[in-house]
Order: sequence, then structure tokens, then C-alpha cells
Amino acid sequence: MKEEFVVTPYKVSGDIDYDVLIDRFGTKKIDEQLLERLSKYGPLHHMLRRKIFYSHRDLEWILDEYDKGNRFSLYTGRGPSGPIHLGHMMPWAFTKYLQDTFKVTLWFQMTDDEKFMFYDHLSLEETRTWGYENALDVIALGLDPKLTNIFLDTEYIKTMYPTAIRAAKKINFSTIRAVFGFDSSNNIGSIFFTSIQTVPCFLESIDKGRKVPCLIPCGIDQDPHFRITRDIAEGLGYYKPALIHAKLMPSLQGSNKMSTSAGNDTTIFTVDDKKTVKRKIGNAFTGGRVSVEEQRKLGGDPEVCSVYQYYTYFFEPDDKKLATIHEECKSGKVLCGECKNRLFEKVWKFLEDHQERRAKAKDRLDDFIVKD
Amino acid sequence: MKEEFVVTPYKVSGDIDYDVLIDRFGTKKIDEQLLERLSKYGPLHHMLRRKIFYSHRDLEWILDEYDKGNRFSLYTGRGPSGPIHLGHMMPWAFTKYLQDTFKVTLWFQMTDDEKFMFYDHLSLEETRTWGYENALDVIALGLDPKLTNIFLDTEYIKTMYPTAIRAAKKINFSTIRAVFGFDSSNNIGSIFFTSIQTVPCFLESIDKGRKVPCLIPCGIDQDPHFRITRDIAEGLGYYKPALIHAKLMPSLQGSNKMSTSAGNDTTIFTVDDKKTVKRKIGNAFTGGRVSVEEQRKLGGDPEVCSVYQYYTYFFEPDDKKLATIHEECKSGKVLCGECKNRLFEKVWKFLEDHQERRAKAKDRLDDFIVKD
Repeated sequence: MKEEFVVTPYKVSGDIDYDVLIDRFGTKKIDEQLLERLSKYGPLHHMLRRKIFYSHRDLEWILDEYDKGNRFSLYTGRGPSGPIHLGHMMPWAFTKYLQDTFKVTLWFQMTDDEKFMFYDHLSLEETRTWGYENALDVIALGLDPKLTNIFLDTEYIKTMYPTAIRAAKKINFSTIRAVFGFDSSNNIGSIFFTSIQTVPCFLESIDKGRKVPCLIPCGIDQDPHFRITRDIAEGLGYYKPALIHAKLMPSLQGSNKMSTSAGNDTTIFTVDDKKTVKRKIGNAFTGGRVSVEEQRKLGGDPEVCSVYQYYTYFFEPDDKKLATIHEECKSGKVLCGECKNRLFEKVWKFLEDHQERRAKAKDRLDDFIVKD
Repeated sequence: MKEEFVVTPYKVSGDIDYDVLIDRFGTKKIDEQLLERLSKYGPLHHMLRRKIFYSHRDLEWILDEYDKGNRFSLYTGRGPSGPIHLGHMMPWAFTKYLQDTFKVTLWFQMTDDEKFMFYDHLSLEETRTWGYENALDVIALGLDPKLTNIFLDTEYIKTMYPTAIRAAKKINFSTIRAVFGFDSSNNIGSIFFTSIQTVPCFLESIDKGRKVPCLIPCGIDQDPHFRITRDIAEGLGYYKPALIHAKLMPSLQGSNKMSTSAGNDTTIFTVDDKKTVKRKIGNAFTGGRVSVEEQRKLGGDPEVCSVYQYYTYFFEPDDKKLATIHEECKSGKVLCGECKNRLFEKVWKFLEDHQERRAKAKDRLDDFIVKD
């Protein structure tokens, strides 16, 4: 029997069936009709074409409002507990596409409070430091400073707290237990936290003094927070936030091996050096055969290959070129070693540029960070 | 069988046995030796002499530190949910005595967030408005503006939040359930709130950048919050706060009738007009007899009389004069009507002055209120 999978903001385990997750969470699939509609605002992002961003709540409504001239805001965020890896960058790159396409304001939340309260080994000083470190990666994406507000919860709490406690008053512990699987051993900060997470989708409304729709691009594991938010939004005098959900980026050790047992080689950090990136990609799990001879004869299996996933999610946005990679693998024409080398060249080119923009971002923090 | 009494910050019911409460809470009685020691700093307040402030935690230590030149801070507060009555004023008057005697800084917290989260009928705008209204009563006490910081939680949250979440990380829901009697139906703001209540006793330490002892004068019903604070204080790098606990001021309808069933006549508000005060005292429960004749013959019973309690707690600080009131009641010399008239004169004199000072306080808010 297949292992039961679990997806919450605080636990992801098992082999995720993303179609089943849509049923379980009660979200909607992004279908061809919706993709066609989205393509009218600009070229479809490859993460939409490839159904990496594959699920949503009320996305049609967001577009209806937009078409009427009622511009939405974007909200996404990061729990700053360590360095940024490509799995984090993936939905942010998509967020930039949304900002560029619709010319809308982005509120980017750094939950330094959350990561402190949920991780025993992290001090608040550390999560704050990570908040600023991680902000450099966000800025390096090339977001529009006029349309982007990055904030740390502890530095924006005076603005957020009144709305957070209005939300908290409407959420009881039974709900938290059911949605997040918490129990009596959870600390009271972790129990309260979803109230803070509820606020940023209303920040544009608070800022403008009128109801502004909000679209949240995020990994589907974050959906439970916003189900709670949606339940209480109208009672707080705001629109329910809409969501667009991504699948989680697979591990370099294969999608069934997301645990830490494989060490740091499961992913690539934005600050990794060339040698490290080369090693990680060299060690990646592929759909190769036991011998060169066999692979030349039978071909590889791109469907289970993490290198192919990396091309798909991030590093080969051109569908034709991706099809060629697929074909050359299946036919046995290109073997894993060469395919890994080609991926490495693309990843390293991206990281080299990113690291340069990231270094420059240190002087641009003031253009992006908002505080009370 | 006697009804079991309950005392928590959120529920007071039954006939409180204050000696049993000391055992139940694990506090210490203020004994003669400690009273003698306290009398060396200045004339003993009548609330100490009469064992109204009757229990403590670590008060000797606070005095030891003070004697060594390590001045403490004071912290008390108010849940701003409505107008101030004399039962609120009582411990604040005592707090002023402590400030005057020891020349120490007072942090006065208005928990506008708490009252909003605990009371369905109150909006946050209302609790904030009450916070400012109630601050006028605090200022009217005649506190030293150089030594007094009054703040609303929602206006001082940026300062408090980092310490609140450090506290929250150390408190789990099991503790909250055991200490406050909460369950899964409690909203997550109410569950989190004790973390906020934990912070003000550390504010002087935060302000000064070094560990400063803190003494909390409060009704003994508030002790449960600070038991939690004391458990985690040292782990947060601060001293455990010391406490000095008051009995709760009895109702004008008799000490066993603290419920709201008797309506607003159970207490006197600082904003009541002369006629209202006269009516309330006129309606007060006394230890009088069924007829004038019987009372002249047998005398009244001051021990059960709310009018006598009002003299004792607040309006007759002179022990000799209080003994005379007691004697003249017991002997049947002064009947309830006259005794009530005398109390009314004292109460109205106090309120008339207070209302004048309160009106003037409107121009002095800036001298007392601190904000982020």
C-alpha cells in the first residue's frame, strides 16, 4: 500500500499526489481555459505551461476584478531560518513574472518571529539576521522597488498587530489543532502565529484605506494558513485572498527523497560556490541505467530524473529545448554525465549573475524594506 | 458545605478564603516582621496595616536589593473595558504610595489588546478609547510624571513583541489550560496573551540595558499570570518579578454578592455624579438590624457591612477613627443611615477632587503616555 502523504506548512512527508491534494484541500485545478485567459495578459510563464503552478483559489475572480480596473496586490514570503535554495527561488521567480505582467504591488513577509518560535536552535537575533540575508536574494530577483515592500514581522508588528488580534479573536484552538495538527505541547506563540500570517494579504487594503484584492503565490503546503484567513477575511472587512499554488520543487536526490538524510546535496543554495554546485549536480539522482552500454541501447528515464526536473522547473524555460532534452535522454543519445554538465553550466550561469546582483542588493535594502 | 471558590485573572467566584488562597497559590503572608521592616522606609500605608495588601512573593528580596542600592521598578496595569471604579483605584493608590516611598519608576500597562480579545462586545477602537479614558484616572492619582510610563499594548507592541515571543516560546498550551482553565474553544489571541502580560516587568531592564528588579502590586487574582512569568524570567535573562497582592475590594452589596445581578450599584465609578453616589451608598448592604429599636439595643455588625469595608479599604485611613466607627456601630450609637451619610461625604469629597484632577489630566497625557 502507498504511504499516506502529509502536507501542512509544518510537515511535508510521503510521496505527494498533487491531484489528490487538490481534492483534499478543496482547491481548483488551473485548467486549459484559465491558462488561455492568463495568456492574454502576456506570454504564459513556463511554470504555468508545465503545471508547476497548477492549483488556485479564486484566480478567475482576481482577473475579473483586474479587468474592471481593480488592481490586486501580491503577497508571498519566507521563513528566514537559513540560506535560500533554488526551491525557494522558484515561486519567487514566478511572483516576479506576476508583478511584471500585472504591474502590481508585492508585500513580501519575512517571518522572523515564526522561525524563532518554531525552531529550538534559532535565536530571534539569528532569524532577524537571516531575514536581512534572505531579503538580498529577493531583491536580486530584479523586483520593482516602487512596487515591492519587504518587511520583517518584528519590524512591522505595530502595523500588523491590531489586525492580527482581530483575526486571532475569530480563531480558536480547535481550528488550529485540526488544520495544523498541533496539540497541547505546542508553544502559545506557535499557536498564535497564523494570526500574523493572516495580515499581509490585507496590508495593501490597510495602506490604501479601501478593500484591495490580494493574490498569494505560494507552495501548496502553505494553503492551510490561508484557508483560515479566507474563513475570517470578510468578517474583518476585507476580500478573501486568492491563491495560486505551486508544487514543491523536487530534491536533487529524487522526488521521493526529500528528507535531510541525504544531507545538503538535496538542493543548491544561492550562495554555493562553483565547486559545490558541480559536486551537487554530479551527485544528483537520475533516470540513468546501470551501464553506459545499457543506456545507449535502452535510453534513460527523464520522468524520475532530478536533473530533468531542474530543467523543467527552472533552467529550461523553452519548451522545444526541453523536449529535445527529453528525447535525447529517452533515445540514449545524451548520457547522464553530459546532461549534468549542461545543467551545471546553466545553473552556474544563473548563480553567478544572481550572486553579483545579490552583492549589489546590500546597498539597495532601503529601497525595499519597510518598517513601522 | 461551603461553595468552592475560584480565583483566576478571568474568573472570580464563590466566597474567597484569602488564607486558603495563599496556600493554593503558594505565596507568602506579609507577617509582622515584614511590616516592621517596611515601616522603616516611611509610615506604613493603611492597606498594609489592615492586611488588605496581605500576601507577597520575594518582597524581602526586593527590599534587600533596594538596601544595596539596586532600585526596583513597579509594574501594574488595567484592562480597559469600561469606566474605573473604586475597586480599581484601591491598588493604584497603594502603587502611588510605593512610588512616593521608594522613588521608583512605574510602568503602567493598558491591555487594550486583552480586553478586545476576551470580550465579544468590545471593538479594538473601544478598548483603545477606554485605555485613554482610564489613563486619566491613573494620572489623576498624582503620580510623578518623571517616574511614570503609561502605555497601551497596541501602541507599545514593537517594543514588547520580541520579548513576548521569547516568552511565548517557553509556554505551552498545557500550562495555559492548567493555570487559566482555558480549553480548545478559547481563541488563539487569548491563549497567547499571557506572553504580552509577561513583558512589562522587564521593561525597565530593557530600557536600562541591565537586569532591574521589579515589584508588581496587584489584586491576588492576577497572580497566575505572574507565576508563569516567574517560571520563565531567568531563562529570558531577567530577575523573577516580585509581587505584593491585595484582597479584592468588596462590593457595596456585601462581599458575597460580587456578581452583576445587583446591577451597577455594586460599586462607585470615578465619573459618577453626586446623586448617583448618594443612591449607591444609600442602597449599600450593611450589618444593620431589622428595626431602629433593635439596632439601638443590640448594635450593628460592622464585619459584614460594606459601608464599614469602604471605610477600611479606602476612606478612613486613620486607625483610631476607624475604631470609633466600629465601636459606634457595635454599640448602636450610630445607625446605618447616619453612617452612610458620613461615608457619602468622604466619598464625594474624594470624587469631586478626583474629577477635577481627572479633567486636568486631559492636557497632561503626553507627560505620561509612552509609545513605540
